[in-house]
Amino acid sequence: MSFTGEHILSVHQFDRDSIQNIFNIARNMAPYASRNKRTKVLEGAILGNLFFEASTRTRVSFGCAFNLLGGEVRETTGMESSALAKGESLFDTARVISSYSDVIAMRHPQAGSVAEFALGSRVPVINGGDGANEHPTQALLDLFTIERELASSGLTVDGMHIAMVGDLKHGRTVHSLSKLLCLFNNIRFTLIAPSALAMPDDIISAIENAGHKVTITDRLEGNLSADIVYQTRIQEERFSSKDEANLYRGKFRLNQQIYTRYCKSNTVIMHPLPRDSREEANELDNDLNLNPNLAIFRQADNGILVRMALFALTLGVADKVQDYECSVPWFSHKNV
Amino acid sequence: MSFTGEHILSVHQFDRDSIQNIFNIARNMAPYASRNKRTKVLEGAILGNLFFEASTRTRVSFGCAFNLLGGEVRETTGMESSALAKGESLFDTARVISSYSDVIAMRHPQAGSVAEFALGSRVPVINGGDGANEHPTQALLDLFTIERELASSGLTVDGMHIAMVGDLKHGRTVHSLSKLLCLFNNIRFTLIAPSALAMPDDIISAIENAGHKVTITDRLEGNLSADIVYQTRIQEERFSSKDEANLYRGKFRLNQQIYTRYCKSNTVIMHPLPRDSREEANELDNDLNLNPNLAIFRQADNGILVRMALFALTLGVADKVQDYECSVPWFSHKNV
Amino acid sequence: MSFTGEHILSVHQFDRDSIQNIFNIARNMAPYASRNKRTKVLEGAILGNLFFEASTRTRVSFGCAFNLLGGEVRETTGMESSALAKGESLFDTARVISSYSDVIAMRHPQAGSVAEFALGSRVPVINGGDGANEHPTQALLDLFTIERELASSGLTVDGMHIAMVGDLKHGRTVHSLSKLLCLFNNIRFTLIAPSALAMPDDIISAIENAGHKVTITDRLEGNLSADIVYQTRIQEERFSSKDEANLYRGKFRLNQQIYTRYCKSNTVIMHPLPRDSREEANELDNDLNLNPNLAIFRQADNGILVRMALFALTLGVADKVQDYECSVPWFSHKNV
Repeated sequence: MSFTGEHILSVHQFDRDSIQNIFNIARNMAPYASRNKRTKVLEGAILGNLFFEASTRTRVSFGCAFNLLGGEVRETTGMESSALAKGESLFDTARVISSYSDVIAMRHPQAGSVAEFALGSRVPVINGGDGANEHPTQALLDLFTIERELASSGLTVDGMHIAMVGDLKHGRTVHSLSKLLCLFNNIRFTLIAPSALAMPDDIISAIENAGHKVTITDRLEGNLSADIVYQTRIQEERFSSKDEANLYRGKFRLNQQIYTRYCKSNTVIMHPLPRDSREEANELDNDLNLNPNLAIFRQADNGILVRMALFALTLGVADKVQDYECSVPWFSHKNV
Repeated sequence: MSFTGEHILSVHQFDRDSIQNIFNIARNMAPYASRNKRTKVLEGAILGNLFFEASTRTRVSFGCAFNLLGGEVRETTGMESSALAKGESLFDTARVISSYSDVIAMRHPQAGSVAEFALGSRVPVINGGDGANEHPTQALLDLFTIERELASSGLTVDGMHIAMVGDLKHGRTVHSLSKLLCLFNNIRFTLIAPSALAMPDDIISAIENAGHKVTITDRLEGNLSADIVYQTRIQEERFSSKDEANLYRGKFRLNQQIYTRYCKSNTVIMHPLPRDSREEANELDNDLNLNPNLAIFRQADNGILVRMALFALTLGVADKVQDYECSVPWFSHKNV
Repeated sequence: MSFTGEHILSVHQFDRDSIQNIFNIARNMAPYASRNKRTKVLEGAILGNLFFEASTRTRVSFGCAFNLLGGEVRETTGMESSALAKGESLFDTARVISSYSDVIAMRHPQAGSVAEFALGSRVPVINGGDGANEHPTQALLDLFTIERELASSGLTVDGMHIAMVGDLKHGRTVHSLSKLLCLFNNIRFTLIAPSALAMPDDIISAIENAGHKVTITDRLEGNLSADIVYQTRIQEERFSSKDEANLYRGKFRLNQQIYTRYCKSNTVIMHPLPRDSREEANELDNDLNLNPNLAIFRQADNGILVRMALFALTLGVADKVQDYECSVPWFSHKNV
């Protein structure tokens, strides 16, 4: 499956082969992302980066990924400035903007909107998040990160143990990741959430139907000795009162003390970011920043690689990236 | 008239020769816009894309047109973030921003503002719409579209029949287009509007003084057998009540049934976009989307060509575009 | 001191040698800024232009400076769209965005925020203004302008006479500039402000400790025969009533009549911009626009040079700019 000229709308589009194809290409993007090499394979191509819902991180990640392949970025942020607000259909918007661009990345607050937009588009559309529905590039970068992190311990996604923590009811990222993990074998899921924020039944069924083993609990203690701990935010507005929210959140915070006590020495900690560092939330304490198994910033780094791969694939240049290498006099002063 | 180093502020700047010059260059831009070829003629040049009034479509169109010639785009959206809000004069803003840019495209809600800005600018300024006043690039792309669409039926702008429909009182685009059409010969105008939204007298006089024939009516029926039907939006806020608005709008909607009944088989349908697809507006029904004579998306495509031509002309490179061609490994997957 | 890989956060980082180094490189940038030459020394590099507080002028200046060196710009404007608003720490934001960029320019409304951000950044961060605290690139461009303007009269910063006028209490630019001037010798300061808006004592002490001579007054008359007059805005909101504000402002306005009467024939007039051209403010009248000693737009031009120099220095390519020159078919139609 080449993806050339195709939309990337949902995790349901992928099978294991297509995922490995994407990941192979993503790995090849590393020298360009780390500024050891430079490619101009997409010189002159234009990304329409349409964020009808604000998201600095994801918007900039898509934009930089396209720049790193040599392309240009035109973008829009927010809803008010858009013709959509004047009653224009998503079809019309797509028809027009896609005549300007070579590929489109789009976020929109409404579930299904990106797929509807794609129907009118004359170029490939990559879903950057459509409300509570899908965020396939996040799911891919999460899976890519898991695979890379486990590899350094000699483990694989098949057979791993993952604990998902926090608001599993509303967390779009854990839903999408779980669906992707259904393509793999023999995974042990530990789902740690307050009962009011439990993983939806249809996701649990899908996991079990894939042959995975599921443990459901509302306690961190004793349940964190997994290969991967995927922490999420518990948002205050999910509860009837601030007191109730604080009560719940207090039980699901992760810090170095808890890590030392309940995790394995090589347990990898992930989080979709942003993490809420305010005192009253603080689901992932800053004292974990020095823990080498905190993978949250590597997730962000990997997001660039995965998005570069998707652009290269949808525009049909995945095998030509090296041919357009060029040297640059500057180099990055990243001191990770 | 070369336009090199000149501002593009008003349709009154143009005569038939200069328009044909622009259109010839616009036609030459087609292979670059369709991604069959790539040029870097404006590599390193910077467009200051100043949209002090939001407009995704027009802003992105200007930006992409500049990118397609190889240039870079720096832009601003909205008024609040601007020094103009702190009492800075348009002259000062122009003086400063024009020292950063090679050419400026500007939209501003206030009539006359772009011309005032141009007085302070050290580089060419292209008016992207100044309130109710002027929007010359829209008028040019409309005329360019008319010429191209008619050509496929062996017709010309001279001698054509155009019907303008909807809110002809407030529609900036029909005013500007009418002024441009005054440069041509022997056109038949059918102006179809509710009497409260009739074309202003000074525009009608200008049309008649140019020797054209004008028919004024408030009925679609029997008046649509034109070569071009230019539909516009009727905005609710123009009426004293929503009921009154709906009453009027109901009489000026265009759909495939009306097309079949009242239009010629090759009548071209145009609209400045965005069209309002909400039930209560719907001036141009989606059931026309499959009608090959619906030219609304070709208008948007042509906008890129016209804006590329204007950038090439004002920056003095209209005859050098081919000299800076380069090949690219990607190609567009547009499936119009 | 090379600045390669370093943050530019405060005027306190500089000594006279490092300033002269920056200025030498800034002067070398002139042919690129004026479009006589083109360089691609930063081709493929990405500037993260993070303006968490809106500022069209400064944001566009940083962006254009980077484009003029051949680099790409990804940016963000305003706070609402940012994860910072969801409780993300500046450290996390920096960690993530710096993994996408090669250098970051940042403005933020909170004093100290940019330095805090820099702690998490993996690439050099240039402070574009952090609230009332620092705006080092403005101070550098002001000093650069002073040096250049004086040179044309055969004068130097050492030994010059500068009058600072207006709101010296809140004016961040005059504070930063004063600190930089403490590195020089034998300067005469005339500080002209209403007593309620006088220069803070610690700045005056620093100036005096540097061996400079300070005169404090609340009258323009008789105090403007300086080499440099640096005018600032008096903002209405600093006073208890509009009447009080108007009273004060009326006494500190500068126009051609006052210039002729009280300034020297070669007194240079500066202002950090934007100047407030509304009737009730008008601290620097438009009738000075034809005065060749009005340097306010040359300040803006110099800002590009200084920012280009800082990008070249922090990315380690200051000595390679010429090696990557290329020719372009377009040229600028600036008619300064």
